[in-house]
Amino acid sequence: MAGSKYAYVRNFELPDPLLPGTFMVLRLDGHSFHRFSDEHEFTKPNDARALALMDHAAMDLMEQYPDIVLAFGESDEFSFLIRKSASLYNRRASKIVTTLTSLFTSSYVFRWAAYFPDAPLKYPPSFDGRLVLYPNAREIRDYFSWRQTDTHINNLYNTAFWALVQQGGESTTQAHTTLKGTVSKQKHEILFARFQVNYNTLDPRFRKGSTLVREEISEEPSDRDNGGTEIGALVPGPDTPPAPKMRTRAKPRTQIAVLHCDIIKDEFWDARPEILSG
Amino acid sequence: MAGSKYAYVRNFELPDPLLPGTFMVLRLDGHSFHRFSDEHEFTKPNDARALALMDHAAMDLMEQYPDIVLAFGESDEFSFLIRKSASLYNRRASKIVTTLTSLFTSSYVFRWAAYFPDAPLKYPPSFDGRLVLYPNAREIRDYFSWRQTDTHINNLYNTAFWALVQQGGESTTQAHTTLKGTVSKQKHEILFARFQVNYNTLDPRFRKGSTLVREEISEEPSDRDNGGTEIGALVPGPDTPPAPKMRTRAKPRTQIAVLHCDIIKDEFWDARPEILSG
Amino acid sequence: MAGSKYAYVRNFELPDPLLPGTFMVLRLDGHSFHRFSDEHEFTKPNDARALALMDHAAMDLMEQYPDIVLAFGESDEFSFLIRKSASLYNRRASKIVTTLTSLFTSSYVFRWAAYFPDAPLKYPPSFDGRLVLYPNAREIRDYFSWRQTDTHINNLYNTAFWALVQQGGESTTQAHTTLKGTVSKQKHEILFARFQVNYNTLDPRFRKGSTLVREEISEEPSDRDNGGTEIGALVPGPDTPPAPKMRTRAKPRTQIAVLHCDIIKDEFWDARPEILSG
Amino acid sequence: MAGSKYAYVRNFELPDPLLPGTFMVLRLDGHSFHRFSDEHEFTKPNDARALALMDHAAMDLMEQYPDIVLAFGESDEFSFLIRKSASLYNRRASKIVTTLTSLFTSSYVFRWAAYFPDAPLKYPPSFDGRLVLYPNAREIRDYFSWRQTDTHINNLYNTAFWALVQQGGESTTQAHTTLKGTVSKQKHEILFARFQVNYNTLDPRFRKGSTLVREEISEEPSDRDNGGTEIGALVPGPDTPPAPKMRTRAKPRTQIAVLHCDIIKDEFWDARPEILSG
Repeated sequence: MAGSKYAYVRNFELPDPLLPGTFMVLRLDGHSFHRFSDEHEFTKPNDARALALMDHAAMDLMEQYPDIVLAFGESDEFSFLIRKSASLYNRRASKIVTTLTSLFTSSYVFRWAAYFPDAPLKYPPSFDGRLVLYPNAREIRDYFSWRQTDTHINNLYNTAFWALVQQGGESTTQAHTTLKGTVSKQKHEILFARFQVNYNTLDPRFRKGSTLVREEISEEPSDRDNGGTEIGALVPGPDTPPAPKMRTRAKPRTQIAVLHCDIIKDEFWDARPEILSG
Repeated sequence: MAGSKYAYVRNFELPDPLLPGTFMVLRLDGHSFHRFSDEHEFTKPNDARALALMDHAAMDLMEQYPDIVLAFGESDEFSFLIRKSASLYNRRASKIVTTLTSLFTSSYVFRWAAYFPDAPLKYPPSFDGRLVLYPNAREIRDYFSWRQTDTHINNLYNTAFWALVQQGGESTTQAHTTLKGTVSKQKHEILFARFQVNYNTLDPRFRKGSTLVREEISEEPSDRDNGGTEIGALVPGPDTPPAPKMRTRAKPRTQIAVLHCDIIKDEFWDARPEILSG
Repeated sequence: MAGSKYAYVRNFELPDPLLPGTFMVLRLDGHSFHRFSDEHEFTKPNDARALALMDHAAMDLMEQYPDIVLAFGESDEFSFLIRKSASLYNRRASKIVTTLTSLFTSSYVFRWAAYFPDAPLKYPPSFDGRLVLYPNAREIRDYFSWRQTDTHINNLYNTAFWALVQQGGESTTQAHTTLKGTVSKQKHEILFARFQVNYNTLDPRFRKGSTLVREEISEEPSDRDNGGTEIGALVPGPDTPPAPKMRTRAKPRTQIAVLHCDIIKDEFWDARPEILSG
Repeated sequence: MAGSKYAYVRNFELPDPLLPGTFMVLRLDGHSFHRFSDEHEFTKPNDARALALMDHAAMDLMEQYPDIVLAFGESDEFSFLIRKSASLYNRRASKIVTTLTSLFTSSYVFRWAAYFPDAPLKYPPSFDGRLVLYPNAREIRDYFSWRQTDTHINNLYNTAFWALVQQGGESTTQAHTTLKGTVSKQKHEILFARFQVNYNTLDPRFRKGSTLVREEISEEPSDRDNGGTEIGALVPGPDTPPAPKMRTRAKPRTQIAVLHCDIIKDEFWDARPEILSG
C-alpha cells in the first residue's frame, strides 16, 4: 500500500487505558468564562438562562452516554460520574475525555439560541476537561460534597457582593473590602439587614447547583422531585425549543431529572443506591 | 474553610505533563461522521462546504494558539502540529487536548450556518482528539506524508466509487465489487475511460487536502500561494460571513493561509524551515 | 552555580505518582531462571533451599517496609501486597518498584551462601518487578487466588513430569507427551498408580507456596501456624546462619511468619482482617 | 483451566511503553549509602575500592545489554545511556528499569568480596533507579555535563572538607563552617596553602568520575585510553578476581573501557560519534 512506508508513525501513539474497577469523574470547566459572561452580558450574580443551558448540554451527554450515572453543575463547570464497571471506549483516557468534552461543547453552542434568543453568540466558547479516577465510593461522596460546598461558598459570596454593588451602591472594590474576612454568618446578616434578603429562600438552583440523575418513569409524579426544574422552562417566546426528543432511552422506563437538592447528606444517596453500586 | 474536609479529593488529580523538547501532533476526528454527513446530506464524494467549514474551525484554532505552526485536514479529520518548544498550559496533556478539541468543535458548530445556510444543524456533532509526541523532525515529515497519502488513496477510491454510482448507475454494492482489488492506475483508467474524468485535474482541495500555514504579509501577493482558497469563498448569497476579523495577530505581519498543495516532497518544507526548526 | 546551565535536564524527569486509595501489588520474577536453576543444579521438581532463600529475601523486604502486609511466593516469583493507605516514597511508581526489586535481589545474593554453602553463585542473578494497582479488596483476594492456583497447577505438573523422568525412566520429550491433555485427576492417578505418591501428602511448601504475614507475638505458640517453616531451618551444617536479627520491629509485638497454607478460601482472610482493611 | 476465573486480575496490568525514537537515561542511586558507607568504613573523601566495584557492576550491565552505549558513575550513582533506536523489552518502562536496577544491585553484591576482601558485607545494600527520556542529542550532552559538573563540585568540596578534618584537625562542624560560602577558587587555595595539595593533580578517577564506553579492539593500544583504569586493578592479594570473562561480545571487536576523562567538552564526543548517532 502506498502509505505503508509512513505508517510507522502510528507506533508513537501510546496506549492510555484507565485502571479498571474505578469510578471516573469528568469535570468540565468553561475556558475564560469571566470574559465570555461579560461579553454576553450574563445577569449577576446568576444567569438562569446560562445555567439552564449548561444543564441541557449535560443532559445531552447523559442521553448519549448511559455509563454516566450522575452529574452536578454550578456556574461554568459540570462534573460527571461514570460508573466503575464502564467499558466505554475500552476505558481509553484520551478518547473518553475528548469525546465527552467535545459533545458538551457542541451541545452548548447548538442550543445557545434557544436560551439566548436575543443575544447571538459572539464567538465560540470552549471548555477544558479532566478525568479523575476514584477507587472508593466514599471518595465519590466527598467529591460531590466538595463541589456542592463550593457552590454554596461561591454563591453566598457572589449574592452578597452583587447586592452591595447593585443595590448598595458600592463599587466592586468597595464590595470586596466589605466582604473581606467575613464568615458565612456575617454574609447572611449583611443580606438580611441591608437588603431584606433571606438567603435560604433564594432559588435552590442557585444555592444548590444542578444535580442530574436517571429516574424511573412512573404513572404518578415522582416524590423524589424536590426542587427540580424543567429543561427549557426558562426559554420564553415563540422560539422555545420543543422538549428534547431523545430524552427517553432504549430501556424506556428511565428519564433524566434535573434536581436542585442537597447531595452532601445521606438522604440523596440512600434513595439512589444504584449510583454508587456500580 | 467549610469545604476543606472534602478537598483531599484533589489529591486524586494526578499530573500528566508531556515530555519537553518533543513535537506534539493533535489529531481530531469526527465522531460518527458517516451518519452525520448522511443526515446533513453532504455532497458525495466531497462536500466543499463541509471541507471549508473544517478549514475555518482549524483556522480559528491557529488564531487562538500561536504554538500551532501547521495544520492539515481532509474529510472529517484535522491534524495540528505544535512546535516542540511550546510551553502551552505547561504541557499538561489533558488540558491541551481537551481545550483544543473543544474550541475546534465549538467553532465548527458556531460557523455551521455560514457554510450551510439552507441546512440547519440537526444535532450537535462531536470530535475526538488525540495527542501524539514525536521526538524528531523526520517523523513529523512522515506523519504529514502519511496523512496526505491517506487523502490521496481515499479520495481516488471515493471519486471512482461515486462516479460508478452516480453516473455509472451501479449500486453501492456493485461499485465496491468493481473497485475491489484495483490498484491506483486502474482507478484512474476507470474514471477516464468511462466518465471522461482526468483525476489529476480535479480540484486540488479534494486531492491534496487543506494545509494551513502562517505566512508573512507582504505588499505583493505571495508566490507561495499555490492552489489556496479563501476562507468563506464558497459561501453564497447574502449570509456570506464577513472575513474573519481575528485573522491577523499581535505580530501583525503574519496571517494564516489555506493551501492545497503537496506536502510530501521537500519543496513545501524547504520553503518554510521555521515549521520544523521549533 | 557551575552546574546550573545544565540543570534544565531535570525538567525531563516527569512525575509518576500512583493513584491514592488503591492497593498495590508488586510482583517479582526471576530473570532467565530456567538457565539459572540449571547452572546451579537446583533439585527438580522443587529445590527446598532455593525456595527458602526466596522466602528469606521476601522476609527482609517485609522487615524493611512495614507497608507490606502480605507476601506470597512460588518458584522464582514473589508477590507483595502494599496496603492501600501507604504513602511510601509519596507513592512514586519508579521509586517504589526499583527500590523494592533492588533490595530483594540484594538480599537474595547476600544470603545465597547460607542456603547453598556448597554451590557458589556463578554469576549475578536478576529479577524484574512490576507494580499493579487494585482498587478493591475482592480483586486482591482474586489476585492471590490466581497465584496460588498457578502454584498448584505448575507443581502438580512438574511433580508428575519429574517422576516420569527420574523414576519412570522416560525422556523429557516422552514425559511431556504422557502428560499432554491430562487433567488434574489423571496426574494424581499417574503419581499414585505408577509411583505410589499421594500428591496431597507432599510437603505443603511445594503444593501451597509460601505466604508471609505479620503476626502478633504471644507467649504461647500461635495456633494460626499451620504448616509454617522456620527461616533457615533447611540450612545444614556449621555455616547455618543465625536467625535473622532484624525480625522484630519497632512495635515489638509482631513478627513475620512463613506459612504454607490455603489462601484461596475465606478462613485465611477471616482470621486476618487487618490485611485488607488497609 | 482451574485458574481462569481469577485470571481477570491481569487486566489491571496496564501497558507502559516508552516513546519510540528517544534516548533513555537510567540513573541508579545508592539507597541510604551515607549509612552504608559508614558501616563499611569507606575511606573519605573517596574509597577507590567502592568506586571500582561500582564500575565493575556498571560494566556487567553493559556486557549484558548491548543497547547501553555509555555509562557515567560517581560516588554511589551511575547513569546509563540507552540508544534511541533500542527495542529492549519492547521499551516497557517497568521491565527495563527494574531488570537493569536488579542486575546492577546483584552484581554489586556478587562482586563485593573481590573488592572488599577484608570487610564482609554487613547487610544487603539497595539502589533506586529512574528512567528519563530525552528526545535530542543536545540534551544528552547536557545531561552528562550536568553529572560530571556535579562530580567536580562534590569532590572538590569533599576533598577540602576531609583535608580540614583529617589533616587540619577541625571538627566536621568547623570544616563545614570554614567552607561555607567559599567558591571553587577558594577551595583550591585552602587545599594548596594549608595542605600543599594541588587539586588538579589528584587521581582523575576522583575528579572526573568513571566513563564507560565500548571500544574497538585493535592490535596497538588505543590512544583514546586517556586516564582509564583496569577493572580489578585495585584489588590486592591472592583473592584478586580473574579478569571478567564476559568482557568481549558476539561482535568480537569491541570491549568496554573505563575512562576518567572530561566528557563536557566536544573532544570526547567528536571521537565517538556512534554514541549519539543512535
